[in-house]
Amino acid sequence: MLDTFLEHDVDVIQIGARNMQNFDLLKEVGRINKPVILKRGLSATLTEWLMAAEYIAAGGNHNIIFCERGIRSFENAYRNVLDITAIPVLKKETHLPVIVDPSHAGGKAWMVPALSKAALAAGADGLMIEMHPTPCEAWCDADQALTPQELQQLVGELKPLAEAPGRRL
Amino acid sequence: MLDTFLEHDVDVIQIGARNMQNFDLLKEVGRINKPVILKRGLSATLTEWLMAAEYIAAGGNHNIIFCERGIRSFENAYRNVLDITAIPVLKKETHLPVIVDPSHAGGKAWMVPALSKAALAAGADGLMIEMHPTPCEAWCDADQALTPQELQQLVGELKPLAEAPGRRL
Amino acid sequence: MLDTFLEHDVDVIQIGARNMQNFDLLKEVGRINKPVILKRGLSATLTEWLMAAEYIAAGGNHNIIFCERGIRSFENAYRNVLDITAIPVLKKETHLPVIVDPSHAGGKAWMVPALSKAALAAGADGLMIEMHPTPCEAWCDADQALTPQELQQLVGELKPLAEAPGRRL
Amino acid sequence: MLDTFLEHDVDVIQIGARNMQNFDLLKEVGRINKPVILKRGLSATLTEWLMAAEYIAAGGNHNIIFCERGIRSFENAYRNVLDITAIPVLKKETHLPVIVDPSHAGGKAWMVPALSKAALAAGADGLMIEMHPTPCEAWCDADQALTPQELQQLVGELKPLAEAPGRRL
Repeated sequence: MLDTFLEHDVDVIQIGARNMQNFDLLKEVGRINKPVILKRGLSATLTEWLMAAEYIAAGGNHNIIFCERGIRSFENAYRNVLDITAIPVLKKETHLPVIVDPSHAGGKAWMVPALSKAALAAGADGLMIEMHPTPCEAWCDADQALTPQELQQLVGELKPLAEAPGRRL
Repeated sequence: MLDTFLEHDVDVIQIGARNMQNFDLLKEVGRINKPVILKRGLSATLTEWLMAAEYIAAGGNHNIIFCERGIRSFENAYRNVLDITAIPVLKKETHLPVIVDPSHAGGKAWMVPALSKAALAAGADGLMIEMHPTPCEAWCDADQALTPQELQQLVGELKPLAEAPGRRL
Repeated sequence: MLDTFLEHDVDVIQIGARNMQNFDLLKEVGRINKPVILKRGLSATLTEWLMAAEYIAAGGNHNIIFCERGIRSFENAYRNVLDITAIPVLKKETHLPVIVDPSHAGGKAWMVPALSKAALAAGADGLMIEMHPTPCEAWCDADQALTPQELQQLVGELKPLAEAPGRRL
Repeated sequence: MLDTFLEHDVDVIQIGARNMQNFDLLKEVGRINKPVILKRGLSATLTEWLMAAEYIAAGGNHNIIFCERGIRSFENAYRNVLDITAIPVLKKETHLPVIVDPSHAGGKAWMVPALSKAALAAGADGLMIEMHPTPCEAWCDADQALTPQELQQLVGELKPLAEAPGRRL
């Protein structure tokens, strides 16, 4: 399956949260020469997440991007709890980029702007935001998708945060 | 005990996380005319937190400030998991102010700046930050206290966030 | 309030889960000469629970009974997750009795028999089971109360477990 | 890989906890004619676990055995929290057998007897216990393996529970 990706020359490969500890897959993407976004498992500790990255790095591929997407907790008022503290801790323990997926964390489109701003303010290197031309027609995750207009407005609001002194996005 | 506070004319009364569901205490502070900071219980849901505030409000005191201070989770790389999503959700469901205690959430002084910025960016109305003239001599929570110099620098860095368009601190 | 209990000569005093870390109350019951049932807090670790018991014991009252009543988790198919492992661990770390409240753990009457049997089989010294003459008329916790007939039948089923070799109830 | 298993005529296939939501794998084992032990994911809800079984059943293989092996929680005094309540709930919602892995749940050999008894008393249809001729030489999970002598003694102690009226193992 990885071959199909390579044949079509994809830019980046994403390991989903449910595959964070699929060790055969981690070893496979460790052997190729493409950036890998490693999403955090639903209840993975930071140590387990870093160890999963080691499986990729051990194969020679150091082009790894951590993606925090919320963890499972007792709180069910939202889809997951965005673990904002993971950002400064990962930035301290590795030199790899850390991005945030506010859409899966909150699970509702109206939560995305606040979580996006918090992520950048906490030091995240990027965001992965879900957008759909007409969210109500989306096949999955419709509740959390922004419209193109909403995304454009959000990007405008995020600019000052991304350009704050001492950081570049 | 509440009488002692009133005699000495304290400005604000704080209900600690372990007393969030001490219903007798909640009813007592509901009868007085002082602002009450209601810290979230270690594993309280948003619904339970809002219900605790209702106990205070039922007595006539609507001067309630919610304080998010981190929740308990499986992750033990830090003291608690700061639940940043609670800020926009509470701001939507009530008109009461929401502040954040980044010191108890992270448990380490070096985490405080990133968490403080994230809290303001997510819409928090204020911060409660621990400071000590010489943290290493503090009787408790020494690891999480900032020095006066660190606090001063942080306040400078927080200013642009607090003055962002559409918000006032 | 404790005085009222003592005047009426109650047999045992129960500290509820939400008061497990009400340290003033723990010190108070430490000074009296009555058995104290110390329920585990909703998200209290075993260490915190043992430390809470130390507050009571420090005052001179060593007549302490631990009561496991379920902990909070991500699973919301039942009220709480009965932490059955806490029984052998506490029995190993202290010489104090450990009982179980299967009613609050499961939250449904039909779960009580299985949880009661599991508790005794794991080494619990006793059970605290909710019963109501007509559960559907109970003012609170109606879903989890057994009828007198159900309780009688359960006690019969529990007998062989309670009389297993090497244990006494 | 599945082919290798089939060529060598294995008796049963186990889906590990980290693969509970590896949907491609679930569909694969759904197409074969062998019993499948489906271990619960570290933080999988009962609903997610039942849905994972549906992926197998949809392919025609209804020979599914649920295996509870402990869930992740805030408590780190043991490896995982054995969710004993899952047994009666699964027995009520499906007609499929439910077994328990007390070794991975507790993580320590001395916890295995108490957890095994609790599992049978709660209605489990079987146990999966780790044993090693000389545990201290085991390559992995050494702390939780019983010696052959310990296992033999435990089996003797479990017999009365397995032969209790109204159940068969």
